[in-house]
Amino acid sequence: MLSKNTVKFIKSLHQKKYRSESGKFFVEGEKSVLEVLQSDFLVDQLVVTESFEDRNFGMIKSFGGEVIRATQKQLEDLGQFQSNDSALAVVQMKSNVRFSPESDPLILALDDVRDPGNLGTIIRVADWYGITKLVFSPQTAEFYNPKVIQATMGSFTRVQFFYEDLAQVFEQWKLPVYGAFLGGENIHTLQKPNRGILLMGNESKGISPLLETRVTQKVTIPGFGQAESLNVAIATAILCDNFNRLMSS
Amino acid sequence: MLSKNTVKFIKSLHQKKYRSESGKFFVEGEKSVLEVLQSDFLVDQLVVTESFEDRNFGMIKSFGGEVIRATQKQLEDLGQFQSNDSALAVVQMKSNVRFSPESDPLILALDDVRDPGNLGTIIRVADWYGITKLVFSPQTAEFYNPKVIQATMGSFTRVQFFYEDLAQVFEQWKLPVYGAFLGGENIHTLQKPNRGILLMGNESKGISPLLETRVTQKVTIPGFGQAESLNVAIATAILCDNFNRLMSS
Repeated sequence: MLSKNTVKFIKSLHQKKYRSESGKFFVEGEKSVLEVLQSDFLVDQLVVTESFEDRNFGMIKSFGGEVIRATQKQLEDLGQFQSNDSALAVVQMKSNVRFSPESDPLILALDDVRDPGNLGTIIRVADWYGITKLVFSPQTAEFYNPKVIQATMGSFTRVQFFYEDLAQVFEQWKLPVYGAFLGGENIHTLQKPNRGILLMGNESKGISPLLETRVTQKVTIPGFGQAESLNVAIATAILCDNFNRLMSS
Repeated sequence: MLSKNTVKFIKSLHQKKYRSESGKFFVEGEKSVLEVLQSDFLVDQLVVTESFEDRNFGMIKSFGGEVIRATQKQLEDLGQFQSNDSALAVVQMKSNVRFSPESDPLILALDDVRDPGNLGTIIRVADWYGITKLVFSPQTAEFYNPKVIQATMGSFTRVQFFYEDLAQVFEQWKLPVYGAFLGGENIHTLQKPNRGILLMGNESKGISPLLETRVTQKVTIPGFGQAESLNVAIATAILCDNFNRLMSS
């Protein structure tokens, strides 16, 4: 049964402050909950409807943590989904550990991408293109924000990431840095790139002047209309598609 | 001065019902208001702050309609922006008139794209690529929804569009229809396409079975990770970028 304390605790996880304090976040909806159960994230608690339990009996049986039965109405009250007739999971955050770049063809770096929807969409795009490593400036939106988790559509379980000063990271990795700018080299006519880092900037300010000095190749998406710019998640997707085409040719 | 009736009227335009009844919608924020004033849309009323008026004195002087002075707080109360220290315009909708396809290389067709943010982002992408003609199925999100207008970042002023049964439109235009599907031809290896229509489907259901029969070429974005799909605005952008590359080669 869903206790008052559990309700209070899960609701507190809507706020960054309480996520940081507890080191936990929540995931909701059938697809995402099933994906997090099969990932290397540690799930503490599952809140499930009877019908979700019926559909996923084996998965729930093999899960070692606490399983709490709830109604659809209770689930919808706990999370942010307008409609949720399946499940919500309370999950442990991973520690902010730097990965090594190894031989990945492309690593994605975000310089202060602030909007949670944009960050989540970018993670989904990265997963689509098989990019599994992302590095975020400290001011980038929080990975565990429920809106980020929702927008990734389960892709958050398949990427590695950490937050750190990007200038320091670039300095140490010594990889080419491709930066998205207006007025860079046309991505359609770029030579086959070496493995490296694709750097995307803030929604309104773009890449910061300090990081601009670390960019080894500015790249641009050719446009033919009058729109002044593209949304950062859209631009990331188009650039990933072009890098993908170039690197696999 | 801002009268109670004006406040009531503008606030009513947040709802589709009252937009339809009055044939009017609103546009907010400096950039979008300035763009709509310079477009072929007919602006009825301008609600402006003193600072906006100072910055755009000439533009306001040449505007023939009613100009109402308001405070920032009043503007924010009228619209949907959290912060608006510039202006809001009440604008007349255009009538739903079918355009002819003429010689445009690519026309964009949307089959029940329901999310206003997605529609707005797609319009911005179209404008970036110089695609000025869009056709929408009747169930596609409403063009004049404030969230659509906001997401276009002013691009709504530079496109032509109409809502109609897409099967009928395709029947009459007799143009090739490129449809976005999982499992179609790889867009990276597609032969140079003829001019035609790019058809994008609903966020969860994709292109409807009836319209699928009208698609002459299914196209797919190659992915290499485990994400099952891409957001429709993201997919539209990647396909437009590829068509752009192919058609200008």
